[in-house]
Amino acid sequence: MGSGKKKQKVSTKPPSGTRDFLPADIGRRAYVIDRVRQVYERYGFVPLETPTIENLSTLLGKYGDEGDQLLYRLLHRRDNLSRALELDPVTEADLADQGLRYDLTVPLARVVGNTSYNLPKFFKRYQIQPVWRADRPGRGRFREFYQCDVDITGTTSLVAEAEVCAAVAEVLVTLGFEDFTININHREVLRAMIRAAGIDLDLEGSALVAVDKLDKIGEDGVKKELAERGVSEESATTLLSLVLVGSAEGARVGLAEGVGLAEGVELLRTKLDGEGTAALDELRQLGELLQRTPAGTYVRFAPELARGLSYYTGAIFEITVADLQGSLGGGGRYDGLIGMFDAKGKKQVPSVGFSLGLERILVVMEERAMFRAEEIRVGPDVLLCWMDVDLASIVGVAHGLRAQGLRVEVFPEKAKLGKQLGYADSDGVNAPIAAILGEDELAAGEITLKHLRSGEQSRVKIGEASAVIAAWKTPV
Amino acid sequence: MGSGKKKQKVSTKPPSGTRDFLPADIGRRAYVIDRVRQVYERYGFVPLETPTIENLSTLLGKYGDEGDQLLYRLLHRRDNLSRALELDPVTEADLADQGLRYDLTVPLARVVGNTSYNLPKFFKRYQIQPVWRADRPGRGRFREFYQCDVDITGTTSLVAEAEVCAAVAEVLVTLGFEDFTININHREVLRAMIRAAGIDLDLEGSALVAVDKLDKIGEDGVKKELAERGVSEESATTLLSLVLVGSAEGARVGLAEGVGLAEGVELLRTKLDGEGTAALDELRQLGELLQRTPAGTYVRFAPELARGLSYYTGAIFEITVADLQGSLGGGGRYDGLIGMFDAKGKKQVPSVGFSLGLERILVVMEERAMFRAEEIRVGPDVLLCWMDVDLASIVGVAHGLRAQGLRVEVFPEKAKLGKQLGYADSDGVNAPIAAILGEDELAAGEITLKHLRSGEQSRVKIGEASAVIAAWKTPV
Repeated sequence: MGSGKKKQKVSTKPPSGTRDFLPADIGRRAYVIDRVRQVYERYGFVPLETPTIENLSTLLGKYGDEGDQLLYRLLHRRDNLSRALELDPVTEADLADQGLRYDLTVPLARVVGNTSYNLPKFFKRYQIQPVWRADRPGRGRFREFYQCDVDITGTTSLVAEAEVCAAVAEVLVTLGFEDFTININHREVLRAMIRAAGIDLDLEGSALVAVDKLDKIGEDGVKKELAERGVSEESATTLLSLVLVGSAEGARVGLAEGVGLAEGVELLRTKLDGEGTAALDELRQLGELLQRTPAGTYVRFAPELARGLSYYTGAIFEITVADLQGSLGGGGRYDGLIGMFDAKGKKQVPSVGFSLGLERILVVMEERAMFRAEEIRVGPDVLLCWMDVDLASIVGVAHGLRAQGLRVEVFPEKAKLGKQLGYADSDGVNAPIAAILGEDELAAGEITLKHLRSGEQSRVKIGEASAVIAAWKTPV
Repeated sequence: MGSGKKKQKVSTKPPSGTRDFLPADIGRRAYVIDRVRQVYERYGFVPLETPTIENLSTLLGKYGDEGDQLLYRLLHRRDNLSRALELDPVTEADLADQGLRYDLTVPLARVVGNTSYNLPKFFKRYQIQPVWRADRPGRGRFREFYQCDVDITGTTSLVAEAEVCAAVAEVLVTLGFEDFTININHREVLRAMIRAAGIDLDLEGSALVAVDKLDKIGEDGVKKELAERGVSEESATTLLSLVLVGSAEGARVGLAEGVGLAEGVELLRTKLDGEGTAALDELRQLGELLQRTPAGTYVRFAPELARGLSYYTGAIFEITVADLQGSLGGGGRYDGLIGMFDAKGKKQVPSVGFSLGLERILVVMEERAMFRAEEIRVGPDVLLCWMDVDLASIVGVAHGLRAQGLRVEVFPEKAKLGKQLGYADSDGVNAPIAAILGEDELAAGEITLKHLRSGEQSRVKIGEASAVIAAWKTPV
């Protein structure tokens, strides 16, 4: 074995930043995922799944330097590894040419770029899959986590922006959220503010990173960061005043009073001196479209919103709730990304998307106790308990109950009835009903059903068990 | 960048051995997975999901040397990588301490070994997740593929064997399979045959690998392999005669004539001179139990069945169909594996499981044309087509249709009606209905619905669209 390998104690914990999902966890996750899927399908999106493993040539350079650092890479094997280890010096790039999926947008771009798939011109796809980032774990932040994405490729129509925003809003409303905010801004509005503040366009990206932190570090914090990044005090003051005009004086207040995106946009327009007019018009119209959808009342103009990813070219979105640092999801228009996968470099596919973070949604729903027990219950309806009967008869009766659609677990070993009933009711089993099979019942082709919570009990023909349970006064 | 890195052309293909699942693929996959899940839940199994990433200390040494070779390993990052690259020589073990999930059984063993989870004494879990093996791709063989596992931990009761076999049999019957075989053998029956043939127990594993290939390489091939592995000709002849007694003369013929597992077992018993009696009794009783379940008619005694994995301790299973080399799934009893995750090395958790391979099932179902189009259809019910109306009205009407439960895609751009209708009917969209919104309809709060296949058409109030469609003579 290798020189660096030590004898390790075998741990039963999952690796740091990852989790085992026990049955109760799956109950909650499946509940949310099912509802996301139903809403996305109602909006006409169709499902796509891409491999966990992608070539590094697909992934690298799409997520910025930090993203490249957070990629999981798969170590070469056998001959490829031997060859790499003979190099001197050996570098990271020699040791891997594949990695794990980092988001769902770049794989979509690769798929849409693959002309052999013959996808429709307007590809409305949803994708609900895990992604991996070698990031520092935290509350609602994991190294393996699920994204729930909708994207529309192939059109510059604002209907696309409206559809993705409406779909994610309806997801959240369906899940019981009432107080989220869809923050909306536009890449070109950001640029217009940068220009209006007299900031060199070379500093644009850097300045926007600072502005994006307004919520976290406040006005003074942003000013300090802008100075550190080489923005003059005058420019910083102007930029902040623009951001705050649209925000605090406009929609941020307006939101509570029913003033929409349009009003915030118009406020900023008066300060921009003709800069960014097309983008402002676009946001104004998007606001009008969204008024006709479930997103309407949740929309806010957010001039400070920049989002990290550099591939956005138009409208950008982010959903926030008061009790979660960070966002429940985000997205925007990216008209240049898919062209990167065109061999000739000419085919542009204008696209817009929105991504919801499953774990972020779950953490808020759990903390707010938004789940109802009956909606997320997993496990059997019935535990089949037995005494003084042969195993073949037990297996046969279980089959008879299952044939009626009941979910049936069989107590597998000989034990006193009290112990079996106690097991039915124990944590992790939680069977609401015990079906008791003894010599008498077996001889008569019957079974004794016991509703464990209400104590209600009846002896019935095996073939009628499901109907009897359905007719019980106390629901199971 | 690293010395080994070359400028790569960005490919739009997924990596070798992996696949993109387009919407139609997902339709088939989701159909199968949903049915697997429903049956498994009817049998009282509860869901578990484990992380994609596992510590190598969990994975290594569980799957044999070949398995260790096929593990995907995750390259260390940053400081860990730098430190490793300073070693001389650098080995594989220095470069990674995590890898990708290789099967679902070892992660289950880790989870059951984790006492902090407070799992029930008899943990009946199902798990449907992908696994990764750096294997040579082939027909129905991929590097990323899904397993659909059921396992029952915590009991030696034969009810557990019967339940897992019955569950997978019912899955296949539910999917429309009529002609599969559940091959059953027992670790101790194999050992008894080895002993009865006078083969040194040191050669047991090696000899069984040869016997397991009977279906593929025939009697002469097995004899040749046994000789190469150091088994005397006399022992090889005896071993093969034992394997064939149970198989060709017994159940293999008997299967077609309705003779069950029990008869095959009794035939072999007469040749084993008292060896393996307990195991033969167990198989006989298992056969009796299975007669009471949907597995009954599909069971065959398979004395040649060895299966590669060394952790099996009791009954072993494998499902085959005539038109697929390899198996649809397999499993068995493994009473020692979970104890490997007990820190004190004392806690044994007897367990039995069965694993179905999703891709194997899919490849057979596709080749046999077992899918019905209406069961696997994905995509919108309605494409909303429009002329001479404003975008906000279109978005509003789409919302009105979705509120009735319809799955609605909006044609996003201005285009002639004929083009829009053609798009609705095109590959990859396949919307069965077009909803046409013009000035007239909008003014009247109506919509024109057109059934694209039948040509049936009616103009209706927007709020009544779903009811009208449901009442159409031609189903959508």
